Amino acid sequence: MFFKVKTAEEVLEILKEFGPLREETVSLEDAFNRVISQEIISQEDLPDFPRSSMDGYAVNARDTFGATENLPVSLDIAGEISIGTAPEISVGPGKAVRIPTGGMIPEGANAVVMVEYCHLLDDKTIEVSHAVSPLENVISPGDDFRKGVMIFKKGTRLRPQDLGLLAGLGISTVSVHKKARVAIISTGDEILPIEQMPGPGQVRDINSYTLIAFCRQAGVIPVNLGLCKDNFDDLRDMVKKGIETADTLWISGGSSVGTRDMTVKVMESFDHMELLVHGISISPGKPTIIAKIGNKAVFGLPGHAASAMVIAEIFLNPFLSRLSGDINAFEDSHFYMEAELNRNIESASGRDDYIRVRLEKRDGRLFAEPIFGKSGLISTLVEAHGLLKVDRNTEGLYKGQAVKVMLFKAS
Amino acid sequence: MFFKVKTAEEVLEILKEFGPLREETVSLEDAFNRVISQEIISQEDLPDFPRSSMDGYAVNARDTFGATENLPVSLDIAGEISIGTAPEISVGPGKAVRIPTGGMIPEGANAVVMVEYCHLLDDKTIEVSHAVSPLENVISPGDDFRKGVMIFKKGTRLRPQDLGLLAGLGISTVSVHKKARVAIISTGDEILPIEQMPGPGQVRDINSYTLIAFCRQAGVIPVNLGLCKDNFDDLRDMVKKGIETADTLWISGGSSVGTRDMTVKVMESFDHMELLVHGISISPGKPTIIAKIGNKAVFGLPGHAASAMVIAEIFLNPFLSRLSGDINAFEDSHFYMEAELNRNIESASGRDDYIRVRLEKRDGRLFAEPIFGKSGLISTLVEAHGLLKVDRNTEGLYKGQAVKVMLFKAS
Repeated sequence: MFFKVKTAEEVLEILKEFGPLREETVSLEDAFNRVISQEIISQEDLPDFPRSSMDGYAVNARDTFGATENLPVSLDIAGEISIGTAPEISVGPGKAVRIPTGGMIPEGANAVVMVEYCHLLDDKTIEVSHAVSPLENVISPGDDFRKGVMIFKKGTRLRPQDLGLLAGLGISTVSVHKKARVAIISTGDEILPIEQMPGPGQVRDINSYTLIAFCRQAGVIPVNLGLCKDNFDDLRDMVKKGIETADTLWISGGSSVGTRDMTVKVMESFDHMELLVHGISISPGKPTIIAKIGNKAVFGLPGHAASAMVIAEIFLNPFLSRLSGDINAFEDSHFYMEAELNRNIESASGRDDYIRVRLEKRDGRLFAEPIFGKSGLISTLVEAHGLLKVDRNTEGLYKGQAVKVMLFKAS
Repeated sequence: MFFKVKTAEEVLEILKEFGPLREETVSLEDAFNRVISQEIISQEDLPDFPRSSMDGYAVNARDTFGATENLPVSLDIAGEISIGTAPEISVGPGKAVRIPTGGMIPEGANAVVMVEYCHLLDDKTIEVSHAVSPLENVISPGDDFRKGVMIFKKGTRLRPQDLGLLAGLGISTVSVHKKARVAIISTGDEILPIEQMPGPGQVRDINSYTLIAFCRQAGVIPVNLGLCKDNFDDLRDMVKKGIETADTLWISGGSSVGTRDMTVKVMESFDHMELLVHGISISPGKPTIIAKIGNKAVFGLPGHAASAMVIAEIFLNPFLSRLSGDINAFEDSHFYMEAELNRNIESASGRDDYIRVRLEKRDGRLFAEPIFGKSGLISTLVEAHGLLKVDRNTEGLYKGQAVKVMLFKAS
């Protein structure tokens, strides 16, 4: 069957076929970086009582009107508010009550004068040298969030402050999409476990380690199924195991046409299999295969480490984000840095080239320095800070041109 | 004792007093995002044999010189290389050997002609329509990394591709700095566990959850010691426990002068205690305390969630990175996004203001929209995408001005 190489945009569109994973309930402590599967509505006002945002004196604002340093106003101290308790005193006209930051505003008061503007005349009287307006230095009920308001949309990824808000509202468990389990297989007769000393023609397994770490970075669970020789039955058994135990399966290896064909044959041997992608117009990474077996995505990744990594950055990031239920899954989540290209780059039209680049600061200018080298070399990735895309409709980029470098993700 | 408020730069300089944590050995699978404590030297060439980077025919380049589509060169097929094994055949003059991607280049060959340029005349002969130069499509021994070369400096944080390289070199364990254990205490008579329903004047514990998630984001281990009432003996016991069991201790709460004073008194009650910072010229976050007890840093963080979070972004990030041994710990690790400010911002001189901002795309332009609100409101953080620094030497920023927004860290 003739299979047309797909563009990156077509591949991303295809990946939308795979939906978010099912939901589970986790405790708030474990909810960091998880994506909520149901919208969350505030069940109460936060805060649910008026609080002081300063150390000072709770007053009726009207009693301070006109107060200045030259013409202070005297108020009687009616008592003191303890933090964490309901005030037992109220503030009558001409009265003030000492209040700490976070204390509950007593009846009759509607503002707080900062302690800096209060001069203690004796233990019963203060002089206020600064007028306050109603609600000044007061946090009113619902100022943070009101009861009944939607605080998070379905598909929101939770950040530290988001968990803080949920804690404040007493929401101690949340419904989130499950973390993806990613089965990883490295194939190739030449690949050895890293503990073994390679003989002539043999190399150690690089891709499993790169992909496992990539999964950890993405916050998903890698399931390392190990190495597989170039053998139909062995690979089929492992693929079967991968599909049964994980949410997606990534087979790396098979840069040669022969092994790649075998990977496709293995995929095709499963029922309910659909070959979605066989080749992407991208370099490195062209010989990428994507199939759907049942409802799971099976990726045949190129064996070259740099190729596999480019595919991971461009396609596996949004794919994993999609499985997690993130509403922004298909928005590019990379950060970019603008730099000056330090040499010309030629590029074949008809494919997106991803050039590995090093960023170098010299004389206060930031330069993007392309690292050329075969995609079989992992050094091109290790020495790089990010990737520079040369779009398939561009013939090249020029020395001195301002370019945007896609940075590798941090931790 | 009078203690001068310190600038952010002074505080960062002070944090350099705390050194990286001691080292431990971890397996490569667990080394992602860890920082190596010793430089790593390659003990072998990678690869250690010449490999083909293409499917094709291994040849002596000289035999292809002059070959074109119109004037192809005929070569005899001398056999085939199996992947993962040492070739048993050599390539004499006028010969070619079929080789898969990753296969070992046989004796006598020095280049590979891509299969696309080889036309099979019969099972013993190919026509080559494209000349190759020596080493074309060949990865030579040491092309990736040579034996004896330093591949990673001490203090390097390991990325997925870095682990791939170590795997390729057979390095299955690495020496890294230990992960920091961070003890977290939330103080305040008004603070309740999140499972409880607050009475009047009471609020639930927000900061523990924010800080625990912040630790997870930074890749360190949070140790939640729980809540503590505003009571000297209770707090002292907890601080003692924190210092004994963790590498650093973060006490949040105490936005009122009274509790803050007590936190300082508790710190001062320990032997070998040095008060390093009592107030930072930053807003929000001014009432921050940093002490050194023994060789451990104890932070008294503001009780207001937004204040604590700003301090965490600006100071705890580099501090944790320092403990991890990262050589770049004190370089700002945030990403910035340029946007157009959508209103004027006034700012008090003499302190760095960190304004929470929302980023909004409208008509293809990106706007930074300040979120004003008291630092006691967590909503100001939840609605924000990042922080906008108004430097203490600036009086304000103007509507329409291009500003760089410090983005909150992603996952």
